[in-house]
Amino acid sequence: MSVPSITPIRWCDDGHLELLDQRALPDRHLTLDVTSADGAAEAIRAMVVRGAPAIGITAAYGVVLAALKQRGSDWQPGVEAAITILAASRPTAVNLFWALERMHQVIAIHRHEEVAPVTALLEAARTIHRQDLDDNLTMGELGADLISREAPCAVMTHCNTGALATGGHGTALGVIRSAWSRGLITHVHANETRPWLQGARLTAWELDQEGIPVTLAVDSAASLLMAQGKVGWLIVGADRIAANGDVANKIGTLALAVQARYFGVKVMVVAPSSTFDLEVASGDAIPIETRDARELTHQGERVVAPEKINIYNPVFDVTPASLIDAIVCERGVIEHPDHAGVVRMIETCRGTEVCHNLSRTYERKDPE
Amino acid sequence: MSVPSITPIRWCDDGHLELLDQRALPDRHLTLDVTSADGAAEAIRAMVVRGAPAIGITAAYGVVLAALKQRGSDWQPGVEAAITILAASRPTAVNLFWALERMHQVIAIHRHEEVAPVTALLEAARTIHRQDLDDNLTMGELGADLISREAPCAVMTHCNTGALATGGHGTALGVIRSAWSRGLITHVHANETRPWLQGARLTAWELDQEGIPVTLAVDSAASLLMAQGKVGWLIVGADRIAANGDVANKIGTLALAVQARYFGVKVMVVAPSSTFDLEVASGDAIPIETRDARELTHQGERVVAPEKINIYNPVFDVTPASLIDAIVCERGVIEHPDHAGVVRMIETCRGTEVCHNLSRTYERKDPE
Repeated sequence: MSVPSITPIRWCDDGHLELLDQRALPDRHLTLDVTSADGAAEAIRAMVVRGAPAIGITAAYGVVLAALKQRGSDWQPGVEAAITILAASRPTAVNLFWALERMHQVIAIHRHEEVAPVTALLEAARTIHRQDLDDNLTMGELGADLISREAPCAVMTHCNTGALATGGHGTALGVIRSAWSRGLITHVHANETRPWLQGARLTAWELDQEGIPVTLAVDSAASLLMAQGKVGWLIVGADRIAANGDVANKIGTLALAVQARYFGVKVMVVAPSSTFDLEVASGDAIPIETRDARELTHQGERVVAPEKINIYNPVFDVTPASLIDAIVCERGVIEHPDHAGVVRMIETCRGTEVCHNLSRTYERKDPE
Repeated sequence: MSVPSITPIRWCDDGHLELLDQRALPDRHLTLDVTSADGAAEAIRAMVVRGAPAIGITAAYGVVLAALKQRGSDWQPGVEAAITILAASRPTAVNLFWALERMHQVIAIHRHEEVAPVTALLEAARTIHRQDLDDNLTMGELGADLISREAPCAVMTHCNTGALATGGHGTALGVIRSAWSRGLITHVHANETRPWLQGARLTAWELDQEGIPVTLAVDSAASLLMAQGKVGWLIVGADRIAANGDVANKIGTLALAVQARYFGVKVMVVAPSSTFDLEVASGDAIPIETRDARELTHQGERVVAPEKINIYNPVFDVTPASLIDAIVCERGVIEHPDHAGVVRMIETCRGTEVCHNLSRTYERKDPE
């Protein structure tokens, strides 16, 4: 598999982070230079960078930026404070807490040193970044293995889970890339993904750049496509997976999974093991982020809803495990996911189970 | 029930039609003067006026405008040509064909007269307009009767089926208005309704104007609201109802009905008897209009999807009768709709069954 040349997150050797501004795509290609942990947190909050794995990677580099600012031996409080700020940037994706916990472990190892362990922290961030790409390539193959060789089909995806959302290649979109290269899929139906239009602006753009045939439709057209027999698999990512296999993902995923079950379409969730949160027993306990009403009331400067109207703008929803046919992570596939299947898979993943200890420390409450 | 003061269609005694331009709402209140049948057809096509009943009323007045232009005894071909043009303006809503057939019958009665029967045609158009309002008020009461008095609940609606879409009061939104005035509902969840945002721009605006509590959300959030137990009834309109009770309505209705079944939410369809098309055995035979790709690729001048991407932009979908708990029309309620129930209801409606003879003559093929 060739890795696409889209680079949403780039560490620059002069000690800053360059982010592709995903708010401006596809019509403008702007980059943003980030030089502090505060700047990284703000970039995550403002969705310059988005996608659960990409958020984790950006936060890890944000810790490096914080360490670079420390002078002298009392470096630890400043770096820990930066972790707290970064952890508060988005509440739902657990990869954020996972990455910050990895960075915290590096700090703990070096806590008695006289200067901030910049080199070790940068190596840890780079490892998280590189490992994410490697894991995506593995998940791409594992997910593609689930798609029938005998009957290539069209697939549907929601939101953006591609190179822009990850360290490269993508989770759900990585499976689609891998399956396309193996001739297993015929077409991709991308949902536009309101309100932020990740499907229209990012997924359609990524697929178009690589010559993978894609059709864009409103989220509400998914049922019609499924009813017409045009979709073999619904393939989506995840922002957090509970111990029982319930999946928090982009708003609309639950609706699509319900429709997929009704119309006999299979559902595949693709996410690295860092997305699992064994401290959360079921999806009910996952906090659901809500965002600015303006995402619904305005299109640019144009007003498209009455002033001061009540807006409910949840960014995620939770799909029960019972509606999911398979969860693909880098260590294997959980078919018909349940608590036993999740625990069995996570125990095969190196050290993942100890990486969630601090997620509760950082986690914000449900903003609703 | 007081009738709201929103006036989307107004016949002016100097012989022209004034339409509220629904493309500019809620931001700007513009009216458009229409002086010809061509202008009326273009206003329907461009969605200055929309909503199945409102389209029928506008088309009826369009025939009057055509008759006003005729000089001399050879008036009939020009008026018939106008009917053909009006019939081609939108393919899915059957009320359009029903209204034009009513106008055609007036022409047939007066065909030997020396001058165009303007007075008779205007009276017919006004009757269609007035009757629609009366029917909405009746449907409002019948629909409200279905909602439990013991347990007032919140309801969800999709698209706009209010005063803007009809002769006044509304179909699904008419039921909501009537039920609200009787204390049967606690809150309205309006879906924004991509791509044209009828829910955000029109429904939220109508409800807000009347002080009925409304919350706006993206279409994809419906499942989350239903899963949270926040919705007792899904109440929607219809653009065409087949003989077996299958319902063509705004894209997304099928998805919502599937979700409603999964989450135990009841589904009510509200539409006048002119929406039934007994010549169509089932929903499979209803043509589904697709519209301009620009509705997905642009927000105003802003580009939100890659250039030249494939777009699938269906405006309607078909919900099978099996997912519908009740269809409300002005003559009564069809619970658990099926072919027998539809036929029984339509036979009680005055003359409706003879009003569809010409719909096939005008109907365009599915533009897909």
